[in-house]
Amino acid sequence: MNVRVNARGAARLLARHPWVYRSDVLEGPPQPGLYPVQAGPRVLGWALYNPASEISVRVFHFGPATDPQRALLENLRKALQRRKEAVAQEPQGAFRLVHAEGDLLPALVLDYYAGHGVLQIGSAALEPLTPALVEVLQDELPLQSLLAKNDQKTRSLEGLPLEVRPLLGQVPSAVMVREGSIVYRVDLMEGQKTGAFIDQRDNRIRLKTFRGESALDVFSYHGSFALHLAQNFKQVTAVDSSAAALQRARENAQANGLANIAFREANAFEFLREEERRKARYDLIVLDPPAFAKGKRDLDRAYAAYKEINLRAMKLLPSGGILATASCSHHLSEALFYQMLTEAAADAHRAVRVVEKRGQGWDHPVLLNVPETQYLKFAILEVF
Amino acid sequence: MNVRVNARGAARLLARHPWVYRSDVLEGPPQPGLYPVQAGPRVLGWALYNPASEISVRVFHFGPATDPQRALLENLRKALQRRKEAVAQEPQGAFRLVHAEGDLLPALVLDYYAGHGVLQIGSAALEPLTPALVEVLQDELPLQSLLAKNDQKTRSLEGLPLEVRPLLGQVPSAVMVREGSIVYRVDLMEGQKTGAFIDQRDNRIRLKTFRGESALDVFSYHGSFALHLAQNFKQVTAVDSSAAALQRARENAQANGLANIAFREANAFEFLREEERRKARYDLIVLDPPAFAKGKRDLDRAYAAYKEINLRAMKLLPSGGILATASCSHHLSEALFYQMLTEAAADAHRAVRVVEKRGQGWDHPVLLNVPETQYLKFAILEVF
Repeated sequence: MNVRVNARGAARLLARHPWVYRSDVLEGPPQPGLYPVQAGPRVLGWALYNPASEISVRVFHFGPATDPQRALLENLRKALQRRKEAVAQEPQGAFRLVHAEGDLLPALVLDYYAGHGVLQIGSAALEPLTPALVEVLQDELPLQSLLAKNDQKTRSLEGLPLEVRPLLGQVPSAVMVREGSIVYRVDLMEGQKTGAFIDQRDNRIRLKTFRGESALDVFSYHGSFALHLAQNFKQVTAVDSSAAALQRARENAQANGLANIAFREANAFEFLREEERRKARYDLIVLDPPAFAKGKRDLDRAYAAYKEINLRAMKLLPSGGILATASCSHHLSEALFYQMLTEAAADAHRAVRVVEKRGQGWDHPVLLNVPETQYLKFAILEVF
Repeated sequence: MNVRVNARGAARLLARHPWVYRSDVLEGPPQPGLYPVQAGPRVLGWALYNPASEISVRVFHFGPATDPQRALLENLRKALQRRKEAVAQEPQGAFRLVHAEGDLLPALVLDYYAGHGVLQIGSAALEPLTPALVEVLQDELPLQSLLAKNDQKTRSLEGLPLEVRPLLGQVPSAVMVREGSIVYRVDLMEGQKTGAFIDQRDNRIRLKTFRGESALDVFSYHGSFALHLAQNFKQVTAVDSSAAALQRARENAQANGLANIAFREANAFEFLREEERRKARYDLIVLDPPAFAKGKRDLDRAYAAYKEINLRAMKLLPSGGILATASCSHHLSEALFYQMLTEAAADAHRAVRVVEKRGQGWDHPVLLNVPETQYLKFAILEVF
């Protein structure tokens, strides 16, 4: 039985957005699986289908297909081939091998950490294909181990169990990952997301080109920006509200033989306010906050929060100082992000030059048709 | 006598926008010159002032200054120092040495072409300082020759004569400029802008990383994108509506020993329509149109025109094909540019991956506070 969608669903698919919501599905099979999606007599594509999920249709192949499972596995093969050279050049590095919709592989995330893989599946239609996915993976980019880290809560909505289990080899609890000229530790079993924030990898390496006396890394987490900065700045301050994260950052600093990082457990807003009060100065400041806007409803409050930290950071920079500032909220668009920064500059009475506009790493592909694939904004600014 | 501005003018300057319009000037001296600008008792900055100009105040230094002319020349020194290393690495290249407001040097543009300078001054207050500007220039970055190409019509609004005259050395009528692995000819006396479109330099060099069978360069002008593409694509087609521009493109191809470029004199819209009709395919297409939106009024029409060429180009690409597409209209914001491309992708029923979002070269600095400094958008897209 095919999935039949209404005109609104068909329009989305023709515009090459892979999702159709349950409310736009006219009829479909009772069980999750790979099914053709049609509007009227025309097959618009093949999808991961789940009648129980709010996003019932997630297309992985537009147009008809004679062997849909093969088409899906072909998307995996292409995604892996796109990363192969980068992995070969830095086998001890970390890369996103599959970025879900961005690679036309909905609900599938696969990260690479120094030879070890961590996989997340968020679709009941895809779950049964796990062995076939692993087979293509071992064929294209053999791994020492592979962990299914299927503990994200959204799996419950798909009727899938929450579980963490090895799929291949001996999964180490932690690995050391190389990133440019530093190394850092990734916990495969624990840790946020699949273990680290790979999407900022190239942005962290990019900051290696700056040098000076003092740098500040706010929302430092495991210290990854601070580690890069500590190689070219005499003194680096890493701030985070989590003592556990800072402990990890300390261990990472030790692993790199870096003794010039001061770790400060503090609320970022309070810390920046206090630094402003005491007229502190830093030559470079990194702001890498968590997503302040989790949904559209939070946007106004989030906008104000982003503006506050950026305005305060601008005030802490001397003329010629560098502000490297990020937002990973999808709901704060790129246009709003730069509007927020412009307002912060105006209110801080500082002229601000755009050194570079950046975003998530190349291994987290953005599709124009799927705005949800773009989330990370990263601006490098010179403040006068 | 100081220039006094109203609250609106003061708010702009406090937000670090350097312009105050004549309607917001309360009083000022009768003649153009360098003057302090104040709101109430407070000096907000020093400006190039011209009561006859619609933008009467163009601030080059925010806050008080004891020696304003020195502050202005210091801005020039900093702008030159910022480019010095790049010029030293590629002395036969082309660079923008001064980008007006982007370098806090309003109304001053200075370009470098293989050792020769071309200067444009658009302010009656700045014109008398020409000898002092030249002195700093010869001190920081000595040139073989320097041409004042003061023939832009906007000079009339400042009450300045239109003239082209040498300021230093023997100005050659043309020079050969190196750009990555190619060379091209720049006419210093004639030619659009100061002689070439340097703002796309790094984008042209960037496309050198792509290879394939066939590439298409639409709005090719002197062929600069085509020259880069011809080194890695078997066959390149360069399209322009100007026979004179194509003749120059042919000569540039010869100078680089490239025989695989076909030159087509045609209207770009008609050409793309015809190629679509005959189902032509290109592995890579460059769209580098002139500014379709010269003012805000043209925006709707311009948006439709940009969308048309991009939609048609997407249809000419096979799966995996590359579209490199630009807009140099300041009035089409970056957000609108990507919205236009997203609509084109939807209407073409093609999934489109963002390979890279780029803009004008680093030597054309963008100030967040001065939206007018950002104009060039350049997207590299992969079409599926």
